[in-house]
Amino acid sequence: MGKDKGEGKSSFQLKVPKGTKDWEGKDMVIRDKIFTTITDVFKRHGAVTIDTPVFELKEILSGKYGEDSKLIYDLADQGGELCSLRYDLTVPFARWLAMNSQIQNIKRYHIAKVYRRDQPAMTKGRMREFYQCDFDIAGVYDPMLPDAEILRITCEIFHALGWDGRYTIKINHRKILDGIFQVCGVPQDKIRTISSAVDKLDKSPWDEVRREMTEDKGLDGEVADRIGEYVVRKGGQELLEQLQKDEKLSANESAKAGLDDMGLLFTYLKTFGVLQNISFDMSLARGLDYYTGVIYEVVTEGSQGKISVGQKKESKPKKTADADEDRSNDPSVGVGSVAAGGRYDNLVSMFSGKGQIPCVGISFGVDRIFSITKQRLAADASAAAIRTNEVDVFVMAFGGKGFDGLLPQRMEVAKRLWDAGIKAEFSWKVKPKLPQQFKAAETNGVPFALILGEEELAAGQCKIKEMGLPEGHPEKDGILIDMSKLEDEVKARVSKLNTPTLVEKVEGLSLDDAAEQASKAS
Amino acid sequence: MGKDKGEGKSSFQLKVPKGTKDWEGKDMVIRDKIFTTITDVFKRHGAVTIDTPVFELKEILSGKYGEDSKLIYDLADQGGELCSLRYDLTVPFARWLAMNSQIQNIKRYHIAKVYRRDQPAMTKGRMREFYQCDFDIAGVYDPMLPDAEILRITCEIFHALGWDGRYTIKINHRKILDGIFQVCGVPQDKIRTISSAVDKLDKSPWDEVRREMTEDKGLDGEVADRIGEYVVRKGGQELLEQLQKDEKLSANESAKAGLDDMGLLFTYLKTFGVLQNISFDMSLARGLDYYTGVIYEVVTEGSQGKISVGQKKESKPKKTADADEDRSNDPSVGVGSVAAGGRYDNLVSMFSGKGQIPCVGISFGVDRIFSITKQRLAADASAAAIRTNEVDVFVMAFGGKGFDGLLPQRMEVAKRLWDAGIKAEFSWKVKPKLPQQFKAAETNGVPFALILGEEELAAGQCKIKEMGLPEGHPEKDGILIDMSKLEDEVKARVSKLNTPTLVEKVEGLSLDDAAEQASKAS
Repeated sequence: MGKDKGEGKSSFQLKVPKGTKDWEGKDMVIRDKIFTTITDVFKRHGAVTIDTPVFELKEILSGKYGEDSKLIYDLADQGGELCSLRYDLTVPFARWLAMNSQIQNIKRYHIAKVYRRDQPAMTKGRMREFYQCDFDIAGVYDPMLPDAEILRITCEIFHALGWDGRYTIKINHRKILDGIFQVCGVPQDKIRTISSAVDKLDKSPWDEVRREMTEDKGLDGEVADRIGEYVVRKGGQELLEQLQKDEKLSANESAKAGLDDMGLLFTYLKTFGVLQNISFDMSLARGLDYYTGVIYEVVTEGSQGKISVGQKKESKPKKTADADEDRSNDPSVGVGSVAAGGRYDNLVSMFSGKGQIPCVGISFGVDRIFSITKQRLAADASAAAIRTNEVDVFVMAFGGKGFDGLLPQRMEVAKRLWDAGIKAEFSWKVKPKLPQQFKAAETNGVPFALILGEEELAAGQCKIKEMGLPEGHPEKDGILIDMSKLEDEVKARVSKLNTPTLVEKVEGLSLDDAAEQASKAS
Repeated sequence: MGKDKGEGKSSFQLKVPKGTKDWEGKDMVIRDKIFTTITDVFKRHGAVTIDTPVFELKEILSGKYGEDSKLIYDLADQGGELCSLRYDLTVPFARWLAMNSQIQNIKRYHIAKVYRRDQPAMTKGRMREFYQCDFDIAGVYDPMLPDAEILRITCEIFHALGWDGRYTIKINHRKILDGIFQVCGVPQDKIRTISSAVDKLDKSPWDEVRREMTEDKGLDGEVADRIGEYVVRKGGQELLEQLQKDEKLSANESAKAGLDDMGLLFTYLKTFGVLQNISFDMSLARGLDYYTGVIYEVVTEGSQGKISVGQKKESKPKKTADADEDRSNDPSVGVGSVAAGGRYDNLVSMFSGKGQIPCVGISFGVDRIFSITKQRLAADASAAAIRTNEVDVFVMAFGGKGFDGLLPQRMEVAKRLWDAGIKAEFSWKVKPKLPQQFKAAETNGVPFALILGEEELAAGQCKIKEMGLPEGHPEKDGILIDMSKLEDEVKARVSKLNTPTLVEKVEGLSLDDAAEQASKAS
């Protein structure tokens, strides 16, 4: 803490910390729409939400993230407890379950920011502060039923986002992987590190992964070759059937248990009507230590960076001078997976020390989903019309020579509209000019102008004008309404308006090549 | 950072950091309702939202909070930039305006957590991590129009929360205060510290404040007495008129400007129909340095702790052994103000160094508003029925001897309901017992049971039963519907249900003596 440069006010850089950003304007509208879409699906399945602190006691996070622990942000020691910013929403959830032992089952969602001191690639949604959208099911149930519902929920979400046919859920099972490693002859103490090597098959060819296993990790070449026969395979139910017929594998207790789970899962996913989005991918291993059963990862076009054959997977950022550098322009960096998760049956007991609560969950990478959606919108001309505020009526005044601005009258009308729950604005000028008032309404895409004039007011009337009507439309210049019926007249028009609000335009988004564009973005 | 106890997994305390809490269950539902209520009002006035990072560069926060700067949380120096957790949402907003100089005016709201290493009093909503709901207007406008709208918005929010008649908006003006100090003869370099002393009049009697001015701060007794004649006064428009007739005050440039502003403000507040909630309180000074014009604070019963006459105002927590102690049981600690703000015309230029953007805003203390609302609900029996999830249909199965649980059928029906956007659950058991299924539905207050039986399914039917119908009701045992019309039949019943969802029950909440209860809560 010795580097504090004091209270100097003029010499500092005007910026946000590296790897973070401000969200504003249309980006906020699009991101909120993504949150709402996801939350609606969670609620459709009976989920409730909880909110945990942004920082946890440092000890709570210790020993949960393997070598990624170095990416945890710590708070300064200012006396009192040592704390760290949360790294994900899963460990805080497990801590919460352990602290609330009266809760034996729950479906919970949590949408909140998490923090990782990783090398950023901002335009690809890889940031140091980013949102996660988590859904987890805790509790003892019959096998694979919660697991199947999580994958059903995942498909409902990507359907609601308009991604049908444009994403793949890769699934695998930790017990199958462990069984394969045992059957192939991997020593018990090398299983986790060999598993990590396998996980790189989405970015590196088998030859490179084999080299890492044998040269870097000292695995016997024949053992590696045996592994290679399994882990390069991917497919659907037919792959599962092949493995079930594999006598060596079926004789292994771990593999057998995993294959039984997968059999049930496939049956349930078929009933749920989502099998077409699933790929049984034996190379999927997932980095985190705490998974114990089925694991999955959702990828889309652009998830993967462009790597030439033989090139190594990007290594984890090291503490070098340019670890802070943004990698948005690095073509080898993709958006990454847009959702991932799995079953973790032992994590809660790491905190409680006693009762297990089996859990299964998924985390949606909202910022990555946002990046892809944004690219899609950028290509769509209608997106230019996304409104950032929701005002329905702009209250204006108009008059000839000696016009005093009708400020009290505009305020009184705005008050009446607000009292009726109508979204309304007026110009904060005592004597605004009419063109300026129209311009303010147009800039924000306000659909109606309510125009006050001295003569009309004297006759107990004012004019309402729908903005943007074409030339020649009979109401192009607006029509007079009675001030005594102001609220009803305005409400009737606003409710009839029924042009889709521009927020709704985002709804039907499909992906096209947006993911790839996001991956290319510079 | 030398105190890290390493990766020991079994010896740590299972808790959240002091001054923070987990939010769950009904509390989350109530808090979300408060957020929605406030956000709806902001949007009614044309506000947009922005989202800034949880931490800022340390330099950005330096020199903005006076002596409260010691309450700022710093991040550990792990290499790279020095950062601090945000202390409020105002400074990040000003930083954002300075960085986005193309934006010359905006109405923005921001609902997010802020961080203060203060002494907590959890049940009174005084926490180290807490939510603020900010609304600010930036831009050059005619005098007092945005200021008046902020106060109108404040009244709309407390009206929507059901607090009519139970809160007071204290207002004052920095320029009037400064004018009074000048007129009374306070030396220029003592104005800020004397202003801080005046601010304590809400908790301490004049004698104590006078003693602080003269003994602690070395002010001449006669000067203090002259101040005393002004700052103990409070009232409405009549007080303003008295001050406008005060020749000494009117001759002071600063006081004159402040009085002119207040005159306009009262006119506008009258037009907006909110004057009944306003108290012109000359003792209100507000702690922060950056206010330049009108200032305000919203108080309610219970805002103030119980202080016996002559007792000193609670001093700011010092770095002593028990600065971490929760003060919920300390009767001298009240909930505090539930909203506060003012005009700050120079803050943005502290960052940009060039163009000023005048701003005015208010911050709602949501956690304090929550504490009061929660106490109110605790006294209300109907609150017991607040639902935490929103499921409308529980899909069940029932059968006699040899019953196989109808799992695929239950899944298929749930899938159809989800596809139709209906919120539905089913038991994750292969062969669940009927009483268990009913119990699960009842626990969550699910309004409809959809009961599948082999015979009914064979006839293309299933039974729908509204839960909780009284004995003797003709549909008490449910009625049969055609499976071919499943979605329509369910939707028709759900939409007719129209018992207010229990989320809506919170809507009409009024306060009663809830604030006082919150203040007493232990």
